[in-house]
Amino acid sequence: MRLATVRSRSGSTSAAAWGDGAWHRLPGQDLSSFLLTGQTPAVGERLDDVDVVNPLPHPTKVICCGLNYRDHITETGRGLPTHPTLFAKYADSLVGPEDDVVLPSGVDVDWEAELAVVVGTELRRASREDAELAIAGYSVANDISIRDWQYRTLQWFQGKAWDRSTPVGPVVVTPDEVDPQAGLEICCRVNGEEVQRASTRTLVFDAADLLAYISTFTVLRPGDLVLTGTPGGVGVARDPKRFLSEGDVVETEISGIGLLRNTIRFTDHDNDLTDQESDHGA
Amino acid sequence: MRLATVRSRSGSTSAAAWGDGAWHRLPGQDLSSFLLTGQTPAVGERLDDVDVVNPLPHPTKVICCGLNYRDHITETGRGLPTHPTLFAKYADSLVGPEDDVVLPSGVDVDWEAELAVVVGTELRRASREDAELAIAGYSVANDISIRDWQYRTLQWFQGKAWDRSTPVGPVVVTPDEVDPQAGLEICCRVNGEEVQRASTRTLVFDAADLLAYISTFTVLRPGDLVLTGTPGGVGVARDPKRFLSEGDVVETEISGIGLLRNTIRFTDHDNDLTDQESDHGA
Repeated sequence: MRLATVRSRSGSTSAAAWGDGAWHRLPGQDLSSFLLTGQTPAVGERLDDVDVVNPLPHPTKVICCGLNYRDHITETGRGLPTHPTLFAKYADSLVGPEDDVVLPSGVDVDWEAELAVVVGTELRRASREDAELAIAGYSVANDISIRDWQYRTLQWFQGKAWDRSTPVGPVVVTPDEVDPQAGLEICCRVNGEEVQRASTRTLVFDAADLLAYISTFTVLRPGDLVLTGTPGGVGVARDPKRFLSEGDVVETEISGIGLLRNTIRFTDHDNDLTDQESDHGA
Repeated sequence: MRLATVRSRSGSTSAAAWGDGAWHRLPGQDLSSFLLTGQTPAVGERLDDVDVVNPLPHPTKVICCGLNYRDHITETGRGLPTHPTLFAKYADSLVGPEDDVVLPSGVDVDWEAELAVVVGTELRRASREDAELAIAGYSVANDISIRDWQYRTLQWFQGKAWDRSTPVGPVVVTPDEVDPQAGLEICCRVNGEEVQRASTRTLVFDAADLLAYISTFTVLRPGDLVLTGTPGGVGVARDPKRFLSEGDVVETEISGIGLLRNTIRFTDHDNDLTDQESDHGA
């Protein structure tokens, strides 16, 4: 099943499930709210003429894993990690699947295509098995990174948690339909040029590993997101380094889930950087 | 003015302000809720026989600064930083001023006395001047750190964001009553032995600096917390290293604000580690 948050022409939003070629209403004004109800998705009223927006506007946590693609790690000459490298974002970091990513001019902006795992059931000190059963589904994310800020100090947070800089969506696909361990193709394109491609089969720590590990120290709740890391090919690791420019279109795609398409915009006008009540997804 | 969240014998909580030797009701079931109303504190009904609990149960962000005390940095031989080192916690990390800090046995637990800054007005890309005006007040925190997890990878988050591990309180004191730049004495004691003492006068990045800097990349809202870093004297920096044991009592005190008193408890029973509906502050 494919789940989303959709917005009508009037601007109201609803959780929705895809079936028979259309979106259908689920309880809750967004997928965050729906997942908190704990209900099984059941197809309701048909919703025509809607846009797909950020599926999960209200996670309590967005936790990200660094260095997690086996092929990328070995190509850098490192040994495989024994523990996941984790850092945090907040709900404010997220933006919709077709939204512009608006940043102040002058920063070094880079791409990081990632598989996102959506929590469906509260998890505390969970086993791998319990964590696997708690996965509501999978989505696509791009952990857009402000490299100059990320490397100002040893802690990456200030380069990772910029408001409305992490596109997510367009849908959340339930685990009966996609299996990252079997291998989903993940890729990133900039203005049509492929810059990252890998298979989620090569993740060192898979979705259940990460959820179980994180739940050892902090509770995960329905609608929370865990980003599983990015494969090789990011701009900062190139020679010469390559960063995104005004108007660059970043496409992030995972087979069986969907496609994000976001344009980079720079502005020096503060008003353009505040979060907007409505997304501008097409 | 001294602000708090207090709990009655019936278990209900309220935002409160101190005056005439007693707590008085403020609108809102806790100080997080009160600050979101944007109202000026006005003393209401007198509240007798109440306990002071975690003042801010629902921040959207808890952002912490590392390496920020001038004397501690220079004694380690480092130069002064040009940018603050920042990392994140979530609301789940917080616990009340007299609560036990309950952790699984076998982890390396360390103390970090810190001045906490409470945001009173929404801040986006704020100047230092605007940030200063947006400070609701100051509180005491201890950024209790799980050192073995903190140093498993380069990112500190997994050693810093354990649920119910960061005591905060007992009160939030408004800026007209305390001035960290002029110098507040901050100290930490373990079982009565002083292990940290410094003056907030020696902060490299003060409260307004940190709020302005953070607001460049992410919005800060009323009730959000910024922890300003810890002075020298932590256990992991000692030779030999020193960590906290079962039953150790950690006292964290800042002159003009107040005292936290928390006992370290280890357990292997999962139920003891879940968050409790009520705090156990005395």
